[in-house]
Amino acid sequence: MSGIEALVFDVFGTVVDWRSSLIAEGEAVTRRTGVACDWAAFADAWRAMYQPAMEEVRSGRRPFTILDVLHRESLEALLPRFGLERLDEAERVGLNLAWHRLQPWPDSPEGLRRLSARFITATLSNGNTRLLVDLGRRGRLAFTLYFSAQTARGYKPQPHVYRHPCEQLSCPPEKVMMVAAHKDDLAHARACGLRTAFIARPLEFGPGRSPDVSPDPEADLNAADLVDLAARLGA
Amino acid sequence: MSGIEALVFDVFGTVVDWRSSLIAEGEAVTRRTGVACDWAAFADAWRAMYQPAMEEVRSGRRPFTILDVLHRESLEALLPRFGLERLDEAERVGLNLAWHRLQPWPDSPEGLRRLSARFITATLSNGNTRLLVDLGRRGRLAFTLYFSAQTARGYKPQPHVYRHPCEQLSCPPEKVMMVAAHKDDLAHARACGLRTAFIARPLEFGPGRSPDVSPDPEADLNAADLVDLAARLGA
Repeated sequence: MSGIEALVFDVFGTVVDWRSSLIAEGEAVTRRTGVACDWAAFADAWRAMYQPAMEEVRSGRRPFTILDVLHRESLEALLPRFGLERLDEAERVGLNLAWHRLQPWPDSPEGLRRLSARFITATLSNGNTRLLVDLGRRGRLAFTLYFSAQTARGYKPQPHVYRHPCEQLSCPPEKVMMVAAHKDDLAHARACGLRTAFIARPLEFGPGRSPDVSPDPEADLNAADLVDLAARLGA
Repeated sequence: MSGIEALVFDVFGTVVDWRSSLIAEGEAVTRRTGVACDWAAFADAWRAMYQPAMEEVRSGRRPFTILDVLHRESLEALLPRFGLERLDEAERVGLNLAWHRLQPWPDSPEGLRRLSARFITATLSNGNTRLLVDLGRRGRLAFTLYFSAQTARGYKPQPHVYRHPCEQLSCPPEKVMMVAAHKDDLAHARACGLRTAFIARPLEFGPGRSPDVSPDPEADLNAADLVDLAARLGA
């Protein structure tokens, strides 16, 4: 792993636990408003609209649009399906901003603190910049800087998004390592010349699910979590 | 000052002492190579080539080019003028990277630590991204993130550069404050709707010079340094 200068991180699922966080935010809405909902099903349905919304942009059918806007459009479509039409504008705005308040996995703050002391660390997420900055500051995540779909003007897995941190950091791709809990994200990064590290996140999709958390034979490193990654990188 | 969410900082002269740092780097070159030079005059001459080089890009005569490249071209032009042609390629590369190792003013680390605990803080500099990241990490400057000529694809005072952090942070300009030791930089930021804070840096151009460090009557705040700015902003 010698020669690595920067680590770039997928965020949703890799650094933060989006599903539990959204469920907790939804339960707070119910307590405030009395409006009941199966918030676990709601979180899964909201997340399921993520790839199709981004595909409108990736395909060129729609000009670049930040994730906050895509999330809000998906939310509006979901409200009637889940009996949530009574939520007023302030509650809708607040619920959309739940994505800015996702909680880190327990190992993320310490892992990033250690990794950032040794390497340049950055997000490389389909979130928009402010969303990621808010996650980082609230979660005490020691990212050096933030690369986003918004800074790259595109959505992963578009190749220019993976090349974006290399350009901005004046760093050849073989000195940049992509860190993610999703093997497809890593495969696209590798195709652009980046090194890769796979993180096992068995609980990303909730209890009772069995996502593929077997080691990625194509990755340069496999780690149980970000503290384990720091140890494996000598950080 | 209520409502401010983000502070964006000019860097050369405002956060770091470019002139003393370049002189010290030059003196190290002399110790290593035996090549003598008036390094203070060299530093001033190098800096004097900064605005004309950027103007080639701002005018559209040249496509966007990062500051590392402009600095290197200026360096090559300066070497014969200062009797430095004997410096080999490694020394030239190293001297150009002196801009990545500029030392902070003594108050900058503490000031930024305090300000970053309360506000989003970012560079907004004509440096390229890696240059600024290197300054931040070496100088223990707690910037939340880095905006640069390279992320904005342009050089101050082009208006789109001042609007760039507002767009990236999903923040109206009146909630963003530009911090600089140069009144012209602040005037351009104000024209784009940003709040402004003037920092007095009487030693930016070396001893015996008298730059205009009188309070800026147009600025929202005037401060002696970044620790004073933190105190004035309640951070």
